Amino acid sequence: MNPTSDPNLKCWLKLPKDTPFSIQNLPYGVFVPPDDGNPRVGVAIGDYVLDLAELERRGLVSATPGAAKYNPNETQDSFLNVLNRAGSNTVFDKPSLNAFMRSGPVAWHQTRVSVSKLLSGEDPRLQMNEELQEAALRNRADVAMRVPVEIGDYTDFYSSKQHAMNVGTMLRGPENALMPNYTHLPIAYHGRAGSIVPSGTAVRRPNGQTKKDEDAAPAFGPSKNLDFELEVGFFVGTPNLQGQPIQIKRAAEHVFGFVLVNDWSARDIQKWEYQPLGPFNAKNFATTVSPWVVSLEAIAPFRCAGPAQDPEPLPYLRSPGPWAFNIELEVLLQTQDMPEPVRISQTNYRHMYWNMCQQLAHHTSGGCNLRTGDLIASGTVSGDAPGSYGSLLELAWKGTKPIKLPNGQERKFLEDGDTVIMRGYCQGDGFRVGFGDCSGTVLPAPI
Amino acid sequence: MNPTSDPNLKCWLKLPKDTPFSIQNLPYGVFVPPDDGNPRVGVAIGDYVLDLAELERRGLVSATPGAAKYNPNETQDSFLNVLNRAGSNTVFDKPSLNAFMRSGPVAWHQTRVSVSKLLSGEDPRLQMNEELQEAALRNRADVAMRVPVEIGDYTDFYSSKQHAMNVGTMLRGPENALMPNYTHLPIAYHGRAGSIVPSGTAVRRPNGQTKKDEDAAPAFGPSKNLDFELEVGFFVGTPNLQGQPIQIKRAAEHVFGFVLVNDWSARDIQKWEYQPLGPFNAKNFATTVSPWVVSLEAIAPFRCAGPAQDPEPLPYLRSPGPWAFNIELEVLLQTQDMPEPVRISQTNYRHMYWNMCQQLAHHTSGGCNLRTGDLIASGTVSGDAPGSYGSLLELAWKGTKPIKLPNGQERKFLEDGDTVIMRGYCQGDGFRVGFGDCSGTVLPAPI
Repeated sequence: MNPTSDPNLKCWLKLPKDTPFSIQNLPYGVFVPPDDGNPRVGVAIGDYVLDLAELERRGLVSATPGAAKYNPNETQDSFLNVLNRAGSNTVFDKPSLNAFMRSGPVAWHQTRVSVSKLLSGEDPRLQMNEELQEAALRNRADVAMRVPVEIGDYTDFYSSKQHAMNVGTMLRGPENALMPNYTHLPIAYHGRAGSIVPSGTAVRRPNGQTKKDEDAAPAFGPSKNLDFELEVGFFVGTPNLQGQPIQIKRAAEHVFGFVLVNDWSARDIQKWEYQPLGPFNAKNFATTVSPWVVSLEAIAPFRCAGPAQDPEPLPYLRSPGPWAFNIELEVLLQTQDMPEPVRISQTNYRHMYWNMCQQLAHHTSGGCNLRTGDLIASGTVSGDAPGSYGSLLELAWKGTKPIKLPNGQERKFLEDGDTVIMRGYCQGDGFRVGFGDCSGTVLPAPI
Repeated sequence: MNPTSDPNLKCWLKLPKDTPFSIQNLPYGVFVPPDDGNPRVGVAIGDYVLDLAELERRGLVSATPGAAKYNPNETQDSFLNVLNRAGSNTVFDKPSLNAFMRSGPVAWHQTRVSVSKLLSGEDPRLQMNEELQEAALRNRADVAMRVPVEIGDYTDFYSSKQHAMNVGTMLRGPENALMPNYTHLPIAYHGRAGSIVPSGTAVRRPNGQTKKDEDAAPAFGPSKNLDFELEVGFFVGTPNLQGQPIQIKRAAEHVFGFVLVNDWSARDIQKWEYQPLGPFNAKNFATTVSPWVVSLEAIAPFRCAGPAQDPEPLPYLRSPGPWAFNIELEVLLQTQDMPEPVRISQTNYRHMYWNMCQQLAHHTSGGCNLRTGDLIASGTVSGDAPGSYGSLLELAWKGTKPIKLPNGQERKFLEDGDTVIMRGYCQGDGFRVGFGDCSGTVLPAPI
């Protein structure tokens, strides 16, 4: 047992019951305090944020920048060069987690141990120092959160077999629901890194071209089939070199941590544009991520077996053990007329057909390099029961079974003013390792 | 007539006949001199590179960093924050063009005017100063070139109708060659920014899953159908805000400049993986760009009308005038057994069905934000005659008409050791505005 994940570990701070941010979690984020505008790295603990930049200044945590093997691709290097030229050795007084992520797995672990000991009191230097507490502990409600990582490339997989089956059934009927390649390789496409926004950012409904089957020509206007997609994503910590695939047995060493992802989708735009090169404007207007990155070390105790794979994958895709994760997931919806959100989907990340190691091995199998900060999302997480689907398209089955809300309203797709909230957590023995909200409210399309 | 593009303008330096880097061109790149390892911005002129960092230090050129309206998306801002924190006001002593690109169109123009005057002698301070020439003029043969831009997102369009027709004919027959959406919107997909490499970088053949029609299951191994794609790309200079589409009449204001792009493609991997979300590992192993960015101002005199569009595009896609460009393009191939490369394709960028302004208007029509440094490529440029196709797939027509080389060798697809060289230029009256080589040699797949 990793001592930082010990269920018996207690924090000397008072933590709310069932907080997602237990002492066993210690997720990293980038926050901006209300009294100065400098974004910096913090750790969520209960209703607080612990300021790692402050702890670093005082020598209570440290990590050496650039210690991780770094990708020598020239373009990418330039960001690191700029950081180095800035002449600063801080990794936490930064507007992103990237410098910390580049410091490598040993530094990640050591930082986690240091923070864990400060919050358990085994290291008493925070618990016994009120001035330091005043300087380094913030109310979480008072800070603004940023996208925590400078994201290089964003890849979106399609790894829920149930989701692929559902969508395929709606498009092509149950006999041809699953493409022949689906059980042989983890399907993915490249998404848009530049339009990723932090939880809480309002999302504008896209305009776009759509064409009804009965119309001769397309029309341009607001999407009528705006949807969410419940996903789990992870950030690459340790890069690989171009032309040097990651072997599946070593894939986990490259993973820094996890977030929730809402891959907003305009189904009607997608339907008209996606042949032959895949979704484009249907997805690139916005993607929302939760602000706290739950480290692989924190969720490692919740590893479990995924579904059986038939046919057996090719050797380069054979999983080195149980690499699914038991993460409870839910989606809540709140319309403008509702006093509070209501749960409309409940599922679990453990059902994904392709796991994280298989995704990384496949992604790099042709030589593609991954950089520190790349985001890799799972694709919509759908379970095998109707209430466990991860999109409105599936929950309302292409509009044929509208969702009924407690106040009598119905939804086939999202309407302006609707707020979508995604949550997720691993349930430990007396504690949770969770993500906090991944939320967004739909604004009307631009005129 | 913009005086910097005057055909009568002469440089006091001796320039080779037909150099792509005339005084009317003045393309920007990032070079590394042999005597120090600091990448910085330069301008290509004949066989020389003019060091703009050196000129900036001496006050002969200047541009204000961050003057361009900047995208307030928090994540993207952090790179700018880091630059600003570094406390430096240089825009040219940088490992990428991004700081200069952020300085905005007025600064781009002023810089071009300053450099033009220094090289024409109208401003005599370089011509009359041998010490400065010694410090600021390098032999182009002696410097190493980097990818010139810190690329945020890479978008690849599919804007040659002839290319789409050719590929569609091979896949689905001539009756169904073109998808119904093709003439209504410029099709595109998101590519991989992180694996973009500068001209001259060797490219490793990818391994991947492929499946022959007659086989029951896929196999994993080196791609047998490795191909190039001849493309022209442009870099976004001035960003737009998320949710605020670029109106087509103002699209050109967002463009900084152009490069050649080789979008290497593994056709057999693509065939098996691309349904339903588009190409992934077939493309993401490497993309090559030429090192010199030809500014929009430099190629503006070569604007011309593109092909007629039928049906007329929807209003948001109606082009505000002639926005095709008359750029002569060619592809050369050299196998290991050939003493010199031979031209295998000759075409022109003016044939593209969708132009730059239409691409930008469509890309942002749903609210997608573009950032300074985003790369937008055209898709394979194919003309309407067999010798003018931009890929081996088309030139050898799916392997049915192998290319015959002067030494008796044949090619259906690329073999290990083959070098692909792309070149392009606009022909002025007595001068050329060109790109220089976009080249790469194929290495064997990793074992």
